[in-house]
Amino acid sequence: MMIWNCAGFLSAVLALSVTGAASAQQKKFKNIIMLIPDGCDNGVLGLARWYKNAPLQVDEMSSGRHQPYMANSIMTDSAPGGTALSTGQLTTDKFIAVGPRREDVLTNLNERDLWPAYAPIPTILEAAKKLGMSTGLVSTSRVTHATPAGFAAHVDSRSKEQEIARHMVFNGIDVVMGGGRNNMLPKPECYNTTGTTPFVEVGRQTDEGEYSSSNRQTGARDDCLNLEDELVSRGYDLCYTRQEMMAMDVKPGTKAWCSFASSHMAPDIDRQFIAQTEPSLAEMTDKAIEILSQNPAGFFLMVEGSQVDWAGHANDPIWMVTDFIAWDDAVKVSVDFAKETDTLVMAQPDHNTGGLKVGSYKFEYVDRTVEFAREPLLGMRMTSEAVVEKMGVPEENATVALLKASILENWSINITDNEAQQILEYSDRYSDKFLSNPSDKIPLNYAMSRIVSHSYTIAGWSSHGHNAEDVPLWFYGMDVPKGAILNTDLGKIAADALGGLSKLNRDLFVDLDTTSLTWSVDLSKETNPHALVEGFVFPLGTDYFLNNGVRVNLPGITVYAPTTEKLYISMEAIQIVQSLA
Amino acid sequence: MMIWNCAGFLSAVLALSVTGAASAQQKKFKNIIMLIPDGCDNGVLGLARWYKNAPLQVDEMSSGRHQPYMANSIMTDSAPGGTALSTGQLTTDKFIAVGPRREDVLTNLNERDLWPAYAPIPTILEAAKKLGMSTGLVSTSRVTHATPAGFAAHVDSRSKEQEIARHMVFNGIDVVMGGGRNNMLPKPECYNTTGTTPFVEVGRQTDEGEYSSSNRQTGARDDCLNLEDELVSRGYDLCYTRQEMMAMDVKPGTKAWCSFASSHMAPDIDRQFIAQTEPSLAEMTDKAIEILSQNPAGFFLMVEGSQVDWAGHANDPIWMVTDFIAWDDAVKVSVDFAKETDTLVMAQPDHNTGGLKVGSYKFEYVDRTVEFAREPLLGMRMTSEAVVEKMGVPEENATVALLKASILENWSINITDNEAQQILEYSDRYSDKFLSNPSDKIPLNYAMSRIVSHSYTIAGWSSHGHNAEDVPLWFYGMDVPKGAILNTDLGKIAADALGGLSKLNRDLFVDLDTTSLTWSVDLSKETNPHALVEGFVFPLGTDYFLNNGVRVNLPGITVYAPTTEKLYISMEAIQIVQSLA
Repeated sequence: MMIWNCAGFLSAVLALSVTGAASAQQKKFKNIIMLIPDGCDNGVLGLARWYKNAPLQVDEMSSGRHQPYMANSIMTDSAPGGTALSTGQLTTDKFIAVGPRREDVLTNLNERDLWPAYAPIPTILEAAKKLGMSTGLVSTSRVTHATPAGFAAHVDSRSKEQEIARHMVFNGIDVVMGGGRNNMLPKPECYNTTGTTPFVEVGRQTDEGEYSSSNRQTGARDDCLNLEDELVSRGYDLCYTRQEMMAMDVKPGTKAWCSFASSHMAPDIDRQFIAQTEPSLAEMTDKAIEILSQNPAGFFLMVEGSQVDWAGHANDPIWMVTDFIAWDDAVKVSVDFAKETDTLVMAQPDHNTGGLKVGSYKFEYVDRTVEFAREPLLGMRMTSEAVVEKMGVPEENATVALLKASILENWSINITDNEAQQILEYSDRYSDKFLSNPSDKIPLNYAMSRIVSHSYTIAGWSSHGHNAEDVPLWFYGMDVPKGAILNTDLGKIAADALGGLSKLNRDLFVDLDTTSLTWSVDLSKETNPHALVEGFVFPLGTDYFLNNGVRVNLPGITVYAPTTEKLYISMEAIQIVQSLA
Repeated sequence: MMIWNCAGFLSAVLALSVTGAASAQQKKFKNIIMLIPDGCDNGVLGLARWYKNAPLQVDEMSSGRHQPYMANSIMTDSAPGGTALSTGQLTTDKFIAVGPRREDVLTNLNERDLWPAYAPIPTILEAAKKLGMSTGLVSTSRVTHATPAGFAAHVDSRSKEQEIARHMVFNGIDVVMGGGRNNMLPKPECYNTTGTTPFVEVGRQTDEGEYSSSNRQTGARDDCLNLEDELVSRGYDLCYTRQEMMAMDVKPGTKAWCSFASSHMAPDIDRQFIAQTEPSLAEMTDKAIEILSQNPAGFFLMVEGSQVDWAGHANDPIWMVTDFIAWDDAVKVSVDFAKETDTLVMAQPDHNTGGLKVGSYKFEYVDRTVEFAREPLLGMRMTSEAVVEKMGVPEENATVALLKASILENWSINITDNEAQQILEYSDRYSDKFLSNPSDKIPLNYAMSRIVSHSYTIAGWSSHGHNAEDVPLWFYGMDVPKGAILNTDLGKIAADALGGLSKLNRDLFVDLDTTSLTWSVDLSKETNPHALVEGFVFPLGTDYFLNNGVRVNLPGITVYAPTTEKLYISMEAIQIVQSLA
């Protein structure tokens, strides 16, 4: 069985971006903005309209739908989902912009269409950068989370977020905004004044003696790399609050990295309670566009509404609706910009999560008013996570009384003792006691959301996980080609809009085993993982090598694939090394 | 709150079709084919592709989505759903192409946009007929079921199927194919030779004496009307089997009414077992197009895959997928025709049912192969209704052993004793024992489908009823306008494709209280309900009146609205009566 590509247009793009055989195409848009509401489908649209009491921005852009696949499952996760959109290629669960392993590829895939296993795949962001365009990533998760990572990092596990942060910093993205500051800074031990794990600037082979911890922010990095220092040295403006972001002076060449939270940002509806210094997704998007649009060569920007997916996992309708609307507001900012410029706006979920429907076993179709759909949501003033937090005790100490009180106060719903007891039991054992097998414990807010949704809202759910059905497309600037569109086709459409990735695909990540260069990798020091290529030090995950201690800048990052023990550097790097050797 | 119409284009259509103020538009297509897979959304697409092992016809036509409303609920049923598509107007639950009652209209609707309560609304089919086009209705339900009825009848309850049949016959539809012969024929008592309820041909005031029952088929009609006799007298070819349909001699002017079942036709996958004489939906569609396309003035055809909805109610994935594919095959027949002709093909569900998702609380996203989705379906050789039937005992006598045996034999699934017991209990009391309140008993096949779906298939469900979320659009021949499209907007698009309904809206159903004519209604005889207009007999639900016992044909049917006690006849009828009086 084959996966069915849409005919004509997309096949041509496929051929071009994979084989690199055709001649260069024309770039079709000055700018591309891709917006991803992670983990949703058409189910959220009606609820969001009724809650907002107005049409959505995406309604004006309503197009067809696409099939979210990954290489080893018909249901995708965000890592291969983001990779499909960023590269036009299918990969394996948890992989970030590297080719899929071959052991468990779906039988309906054609081997010839797959990228070499574990090899880095150039992304649309890297292609844009190569064209002299500016690039940006905005998310409400840690910026190193799976979806944004898929556009600017090349690793075989989404959980390697420290390595992802390194790839992102050294990939020279002009604007990065979101959470995840923890992954930018050395762990406290790196500043240990007694000094067995000193701070070492990667690849610089600096002193390994004592290091002062005075006025140093700490984070989680095991490699002791201070990526904020690296960014400052590269001329970035750093910011940490909405106010700092708004006040940022923007001029041609401005680069910005804004970390608004040590881990994820707050859900949109909870920001007022727990994170007043954070901006909204629309505000971040607006600022990102202001900065990126300084470049006369155009820009590529990816914006993720990261938490729509988490709301789906939790079965939390208010989190889902409010984070979707926050994302839709970012789409509006993008389309308003596109209406005045030569800009393609592509918007689509990477997959569905939770199976939200407007209707349930309890509430069917007779006499359901707009108020019936709307008013329970209007009474919910925060996400289920915040409702649990507001109990004031650790989750495991929750009681019927505490649950009931917090739900009444914060969701305006007076659940019964029996329902509260069900929530505690459901959380304790992930089972609906009738249909499911007992399984893992699930978070209390998942249990609370599912049971309150069912009894008091019009929302119907069918999963705590991801779904495999088609998800919606919303385009501004071009029509979506017809056919059984795959998620990878969308990556190809984006690539095609930039004139194709063919040259980049040949040149950005060359497998050194296909060259005559001698090389080795040294992973012995966690603080200084690097390769030696003809004797030159190539710090892994950076965009330079050292020539007599001096950085020589390269057009792409050095990527090592530990499973296949292969090293990838750019063709330009190879040529420079050959000229020096 | 307003319902948000898409701007520009649709507002213009709305103004035209409601007010009738604008000048006549141009007809934009020679033919229109509208295909409705009753009750589904994007959830069925992936499952259908994997089951079929090929792309779907609708993939090539993938467009945006629409919001299925009715006047008194944000979730629609098929009667107002069909009415929205056939007339561009919202109406009340159960109403068939008459204006909505005002008592329970949704607060977000604008009164000015609503059709007068209980007044008949001209349909796209009636508009096509008025333009000299041929017309057709095809369904796998009784042809008098809610969706097809919405195109050719005007009653305030979908359950008045005998009255609907009368409206349909006298509305002069050129091709009708589907089930429902029972509603075409008099009940047995009408042929009682001792004769208190004789057969009376409606409006003809014929003998009321004894009537022979020899070689007379019987049905269910309480009014003793033999609508098949009426059809024969109007020159229709009748047919009852696939073979007869295929053998039908088609020439210009051919009219056909094919009743393949006394009630509903068989589900597509069950036809091989229980209804070998029935044609497929694609075969009916093909024949209907062959007949209708004889007319050089073009045609309007509505094709409904009626049972997709029933599969959703049952939570039966194999019924859903196979009836959806059968409908998709009919779309292919239509598009193949459209590719050679000037034809608009509009395809869309009227709403979603059952909340099917590909993924569930049990089966999430890791390692789900195509085979995992496909193989359980391939093992299911018939619908859940047939599996229950195959037990060989009445539903109420089902046992664990009988259920297990039939499911193993016919669905290739070896359920546990515990699951069989759960099915029996769930059927007995509609409750999932954890989340739902106890409610009505549900059919055994619903319980079986839900529980087997959950434990053995990738299908996730969230309701036994209808849903309110956006559903997909598939168009061939034009682009779907952008915006927050409502189901009524689609009716307006269809009307616009015929040049608008404005003149028809003024002229087809005139409220006689707005004229100077004197009239009354006589419902005293069930066998001869009629109005008297200036002394002339207007049999209700027919397209003629009697002048000295002779039929005078009219361009539309006579509709009486009992709730408002209003009578509607066409402007042309009024003019004829005035000229005779």
